[in-house]
Amino acid sequence: MTFSAANTIWVLLGAALVFFMQAGFAMCEAGFTRAKNTGNILMKNLMDFCIGTPLYWLFGYGIMFGAGTALFGWIDPFIMKDYSHILPAGVPLWAYAIFQTVFCATSATIVSGAMAERTKFSAYCIYSAAISLFIYPVSGHWIWGGGWLAEMGFHDFAGSTAVHMVGGVCALIGAKILGPRVGKYGKDGKPRAILGHNLSIAALGVFILWFCWFGFNGASTVGMDSDELIGSASLVFFNTNLAAAVATLTTMIFTWLRYGKPDVSMTFNAALAGLVGITAGCDAVNPFGAALIGLACGFVIVFAVEFFDKVVKIDDPVGAISVHGVCGSLGTILTGLFATGVSTPKGVFYGGGFSFFGVQVLGVLATIAWTASVITVVFLIIKKAIGLRADAADEVMGLDRSEHGLLTAYSGFAILPEEGYDAGAVIPAPAVAAAPVTEAVPVAAKKAEKAEGAPTYTRVQIICRPASLESLKKAMNGIGITGMTVTNVMGYGAQKGKPEYYRGTPVEVTLLPKVQVDIVVSKVPVSEVIETARGVLYTGHIGDGKIFVQDVENVVRVRTGEEGYDALQSEDE
Amino acid sequence: MTFSAANTIWVLLGAALVFFMQAGFAMCEAGFTRAKNTGNILMKNLMDFCIGTPLYWLFGYGIMFGAGTALFGWIDPFIMKDYSHILPAGVPLWAYAIFQTVFCATSATIVSGAMAERTKFSAYCIYSAAISLFIYPVSGHWIWGGGWLAEMGFHDFAGSTAVHMVGGVCALIGAKILGPRVGKYGKDGKPRAILGHNLSIAALGVFILWFCWFGFNGASTVGMDSDELIGSASLVFFNTNLAAAVATLTTMIFTWLRYGKPDVSMTFNAALAGLVGITAGCDAVNPFGAALIGLACGFVIVFAVEFFDKVVKIDDPVGAISVHGVCGSLGTILTGLFATGVSTPKGVFYGGGFSFFGVQVLGVLATIAWTASVITVVFLIIKKAIGLRADAADEVMGLDRSEHGLLTAYSGFAILPEEGYDAGAVIPAPAVAAAPVTEAVPVAAKKAEKAEGAPTYTRVQIICRPASLESLKKAMNGIGITGMTVTNVMGYGAQKGKPEYYRGTPVEVTLLPKVQVDIVVSKVPVSEVIETARGVLYTGHIGDGKIFVQDVENVVRVRTGEEGYDALQSEDE
Amino acid sequence: MTFSAANTIWVLLGAALVFFMQAGFAMCEAGFTRAKNTGNILMKNLMDFCIGTPLYWLFGYGIMFGAGTALFGWIDPFIMKDYSHILPAGVPLWAYAIFQTVFCATSATIVSGAMAERTKFSAYCIYSAAISLFIYPVSGHWIWGGGWLAEMGFHDFAGSTAVHMVGGVCALIGAKILGPRVGKYGKDGKPRAILGHNLSIAALGVFILWFCWFGFNGASTVGMDSDELIGSASLVFFNTNLAAAVATLTTMIFTWLRYGKPDVSMTFNAALAGLVGITAGCDAVNPFGAALIGLACGFVIVFAVEFFDKVVKIDDPVGAISVHGVCGSLGTILTGLFATGVSTPKGVFYGGGFSFFGVQVLGVLATIAWTASVITVVFLIIKKAIGLRADAADEVMGLDRSEHGLLTAYSGFAILPEEGYDAGAVIPAPAVAAAPVTEAVPVAAKKAEKAEGAPTYTRVQIICRPASLESLKKAMNGIGITGMTVTNVMGYGAQKGKPEYYRGTPVEVTLLPKVQVDIVVSKVPVSEVIETARGVLYTGHIGDGKIFVQDVENVVRVRTGEEGYDALQSEDE
Repeated sequence: MTFSAANTIWVLLGAALVFFMQAGFAMCEAGFTRAKNTGNILMKNLMDFCIGTPLYWLFGYGIMFGAGTALFGWIDPFIMKDYSHILPAGVPLWAYAIFQTVFCATSATIVSGAMAERTKFSAYCIYSAAISLFIYPVSGHWIWGGGWLAEMGFHDFAGSTAVHMVGGVCALIGAKILGPRVGKYGKDGKPRAILGHNLSIAALGVFILWFCWFGFNGASTVGMDSDELIGSASLVFFNTNLAAAVATLTTMIFTWLRYGKPDVSMTFNAALAGLVGITAGCDAVNPFGAALIGLACGFVIVFAVEFFDKVVKIDDPVGAISVHGVCGSLGTILTGLFATGVSTPKGVFYGGGFSFFGVQVLGVLATIAWTASVITVVFLIIKKAIGLRADAADEVMGLDRSEHGLLTAYSGFAILPEEGYDAGAVIPAPAVAAAPVTEAVPVAAKKAEKAEGAPTYTRVQIICRPASLESLKKAMNGIGITGMTVTNVMGYGAQKGKPEYYRGTPVEVTLLPKVQVDIVVSKVPVSEVIETARGVLYTGHIGDGKIFVQDVENVVRVRTGEEGYDALQSEDE
Repeated sequence: MTFSAANTIWVLLGAALVFFMQAGFAMCEAGFTRAKNTGNILMKNLMDFCIGTPLYWLFGYGIMFGAGTALFGWIDPFIMKDYSHILPAGVPLWAYAIFQTVFCATSATIVSGAMAERTKFSAYCIYSAAISLFIYPVSGHWIWGGGWLAEMGFHDFAGSTAVHMVGGVCALIGAKILGPRVGKYGKDGKPRAILGHNLSIAALGVFILWFCWFGFNGASTVGMDSDELIGSASLVFFNTNLAAAVATLTTMIFTWLRYGKPDVSMTFNAALAGLVGITAGCDAVNPFGAALIGLACGFVIVFAVEFFDKVVKIDDPVGAISVHGVCGSLGTILTGLFATGVSTPKGVFYGGGFSFFGVQVLGVLATIAWTASVITVVFLIIKKAIGLRADAADEVMGLDRSEHGLLTAYSGFAILPEEGYDAGAVIPAPAVAAAPVTEAVPVAAKKAEKAEGAPTYTRVQIICRPASLESLKKAMNGIGITGMTVTNVMGYGAQKGKPEYYRGTPVEVTLLPKVQVDIVVSKVPVSEVIETARGVLYTGHIGDGKIFVQDVENVVRVRTGEEGYDALQSEDE
Repeated sequence: MTFSAANTIWVLLGAALVFFMQAGFAMCEAGFTRAKNTGNILMKNLMDFCIGTPLYWLFGYGIMFGAGTALFGWIDPFIMKDYSHILPAGVPLWAYAIFQTVFCATSATIVSGAMAERTKFSAYCIYSAAISLFIYPVSGHWIWGGGWLAEMGFHDFAGSTAVHMVGGVCALIGAKILGPRVGKYGKDGKPRAILGHNLSIAALGVFILWFCWFGFNGASTVGMDSDELIGSASLVFFNTNLAAAVATLTTMIFTWLRYGKPDVSMTFNAALAGLVGITAGCDAVNPFGAALIGLACGFVIVFAVEFFDKVVKIDDPVGAISVHGVCGSLGTILTGLFATGVSTPKGVFYGGGFSFFGVQVLGVLATIAWTASVITVVFLIIKKAIGLRADAADEVMGLDRSEHGLLTAYSGFAILPEEGYDAGAVIPAPAVAAAPVTEAVPVAAKKAEKAEGAPTYTRVQIICRPASLESLKKAMNGIGITGMTVTNVMGYGAQKGKPEYYRGTPVEVTLLPKVQVDIVVSKVPVSEVIETARGVLYTGHIGDGKIFVQDVENVVRVRTGEEGYDALQSEDE
């Protein structure tokens, strides 16, 4: 027999598992971002794979595994040439080709997370194609295709650098060029927390990724037909699991100490950090080394996330830069310290001196240099040509709707307006309201008469766009109103404009999400409330909302028993 | 050794993966339908497997693989006979039996998607049993059990026809006999989009299915102990992945051109279309053939979904008919064009002439004929005996509650009333209201007096059933009211009737979902609003709702600054 | 070759699948509990694995597989000694070590479900560590490590007892010591149904577990290099699947008969019950035995869930005690009846007499005795030292917030207040309100004057904490008010107290969830409504809420056409 059943079964099952990482990434990225962008991020995760697969077949595989030069394989459309110089023993070409295809797609899919919630879908398709078509294959050739780093003895067993760091560097450059999401940083420059919409699926994504990592790292022996390979695969499984567990435990304890409570989302991130970190050296270190690499990644992930978020202010919604970029390079370099000599030269801590370590550092730096420079050019060309970032108004509305005509990925669920940032402020509005609102004054006057000096209480009910809520809150604060009740309502009105399609059928919508803000005032004149509200709500577009004024007989504060005017004087109930 | 480790590992892992397709189908079908039917569709996906498994053990396996005639295996309760004539080399009986069991269950589970949201659970259990017990096994015998199609050289490697098309044909007949969901087609006959409630899990389902398809197609070599089998499995993996990716990419681009934006749900469907399409010939075509089959499926899925939705008006909530029925037959037939001769006769495009192609077409037609005729009889018997379709009122309320006593699959989440179709209209109500509402007139009259000629503004607040919202909106439009605010509220009242059970414990519910519709009127008499509302809300049952009338001092339109009467004259805010 | 490719591939893939059960448990437990505890339960499922992994490496493996005595292996930190006496043929140490690690983690993760929604996170980490560190390893040594039960011929193929029952017993003791969740039992002692928040992911969890069980049971042959092992693995696959399907079908039919409708959540539980039950004897029984074990588990799970819920009143949110504890022991004992003699002595029903059966019973009892006594001590020490249970107020608020500072696992989704139990009542409040509310009377008096004898209608609008809703409803019932409308609103106020962190960034929250209760009264004096409301809402803390009083012009009941006072006299709309 030319082929080995054991080796091919191993490689093919590995390919299936690595494919399934797409599900893990999709769930993670969807879960850690907002519901209004869910359809978009799912599509991006699907399409990077579906674009990458044919392109890797077209050119990527040949560039990566062709026997060209130390820098570049060859151009071999549709994998027609002979690759016997590089195929693992006993593994057919197509088995190896599918195995490599899914690794390539993993690298590409990492980027979508860091650039989530604001990248144009068309731009995404293009840069994702560039990664699969030549960025990943070229550095992949250096590392795994017999290129110059492979010749120097650079060791990246399953791709801490070749796969994850390449994805992470693209993510970093992309997130930097894009800029942060609307509302991510306040006027004071401080970051705001933007919570993910579904931690259940995010956690599921992490579990799926961990599961698949046994294929990613384990099957990277690309064979199981010798004692050495079988022993290696066994160690790889044990080390991979141990590093991930220790990284997770480290972050859990560390966030507990640092923030006062163990942080859920960061701890789940840490599992991935440990997995990325151990990927380069999982065959080369012993379990102690694996545990220490996990420990390092568990600390570093927390500092890295805070560094990008707070110091350099690069907005990475899912932590992809820290997980894949930082821990990918860290794990590769630490292999130069912890390698025991079983499959590589000995690392620094095992008496191997600094030459292997130096090669590891060099490999990381060279890959960063290649990836960063090429992806920067790609992003800048896209930015010039078609734009990289969605319109601010579309971003605030959500990319599901603007990019896909998808009203919501969660049809039937009531979704709250976002709070904490002034989304309405990014949509430019005419500076002056269309009509003065002085006519509103007589209402208050009339009421004052009616009450003959006694205090009166008036409810001003404002129906407006959810995106305007934050501005309205601020403006009301400005005129001394500190208590209000906000309700999610739906405004009924005939839908204007182009219909959206769902599976080819136009979608009718007549109920549009609105918020209703109820304010009861006594001392603050009703006219001032109305005027102020109009000032911030006015955009001149249909849908600016309405304001209703009603009498209230009395108001009581439960805690103190205060009534009427006194009950309205504090903001805290 | 009698048995082959490689072959049996391959078959058993394939069985595990194909089992896991149940999770994929469950998530897909749940995600693409509405939240009110989630528990029901999950149960259906679970139960078809749990009913099918013992029945396939009881009779199905024997019918399919017995060495009977060219038309029928044999009756062999509980798989007691000798099957060495058909067992793959080196694979034990129970390994092959579990492998075939999960394929059978795949066929059965396809149907639930097309018939979702309106099929009685009891009817589902019965027809699902019929599929596993004899419909699938008989055509399966023809194709895979040594029957007449196998003898003619019909090639359906992993079941585009034997599994998917059989499921798809049952889905088509079932959806046709059932009729469309309430509200799917307007009075004008035009289809309405009914959005799925959870695209995250639907997307997850697609990723799970794709992952498992590597087992479905790959393990269908049922062996890995020869160069030929190993090479075949490798090609199968590569082709399967490539066809799916190309189909997805095709649909993404095609929907972008056709609807203006890339459609999320259709594109995810397309991945399955490509997978179904390549299943018959994944071992017989080369990667170019796989890509072209993917391309064809990517186009056809869009037309097929539109055709069933818009032309023949068969309501298929998840696209199962198009994915499994249409692309299943398409892939089988295209194998007759693209087969390169490696494992089958050459296809038409490779110089093989039309005889192999003819056999492929014949196999498809024969399987359609068998499946369609038998399942039609099964459905008609069920319809006569116990009814196939849930009551309209139950359907509107949701099958979770009516079929399983499950209040909601998403306890704690606020769920919106459905919009866009007149659900209330399907529940017959007495034609005349119980009491005249003329007493309502004096209220308005009194108000008019009080205001002495000046315009007055009155808020009419209607609390009613969510299902009545659409009728109410239409009726209000009819009397010139075009602006209203709708809020999801809960009405408190002692629950009447039989309790529902959750895990054996009665569920107390005292808060029932209601909608509150606020209408502020000036010119339209309050009495007319009340009378009109009562006309559409009245059913004579408890829970018809209440109407409150309140004064409003003033109303302002934000955009224009109009006040009072003028601010109420347009529908668009 | 020293190692066997087939055996090691089998064991490693088994390990990957058993790892993935963590995802299944996480989804199940999250889905069957409430949304306010989702982040917490996900973290617990992650952390038991991440704590257990290094501890099993540290001591657990050595205790379990060391060649010490019949009672205890040895202390061998970090698995440094020789284990060739116990390693499966051809399987490297690290392959076996990772395989055993994931089994250990399965046992630990079972407990979190039964103790969900009320256990302190710190306490969880500690007892989970104890299980992995020595509880599971000691009884594991008896059963699988060459200990006294193994020597006696106790047969527990893949761990019905060693894994599942150990977890189930810990769950039982833990849930008993903890006590039920707030609101689980009424004052009459009757259990209340507390619905899980997400049946989609719960169902997904069950499907994942079933899928992974093929690895759990199948790979427990720990080898595939002989006809005997291959045949055994094949039978194991078939039996495992069949028992699960039959158990599910049994429960579906049985709940249909018992509760009138097929219960979704119980039926999904039953799949797990069947899987747990068949685990001990899946290699030792034939398919008839497997079906009968499934049948038994399908009945027993229903009675067991009811027994713990209704009779002994141990609150187990996910049914873990019944599934893992009861069906784990049941399956082990039934193996003593149904074993055909293929891999064990014959069972009672196959003429083997009672000695093998007796050993099975003894093994179960001994394992219960060990586990129950040690975990009891562990729980009591934790209870003394740091407390086992979260504060009642934290429990009512949700552990996501109190334990992790996570505002919600479903950011952006509107979440309803809980109903049916008096959550507010568990938070102690000062007995007397701060200020008398007699001043409220004049409002009503004034209105009465104005109306001059005619009936007046007043809306009392109460804004309060969601947790107080149930108390408020009861109090209003007490003064004869039976109709009210409840709306989820958000109260605006500056957030006081320590900020919560999300990934290291403080989270700003200014909109707090509130409920708005609208009551329209005519006969009941407004002052009585206000006074009564204050009586139940008052806690003396900021956030007790406000009450607004407004005139209403009229009220109409839709069903009867009654107006005004009459329309307010019944509770049922």
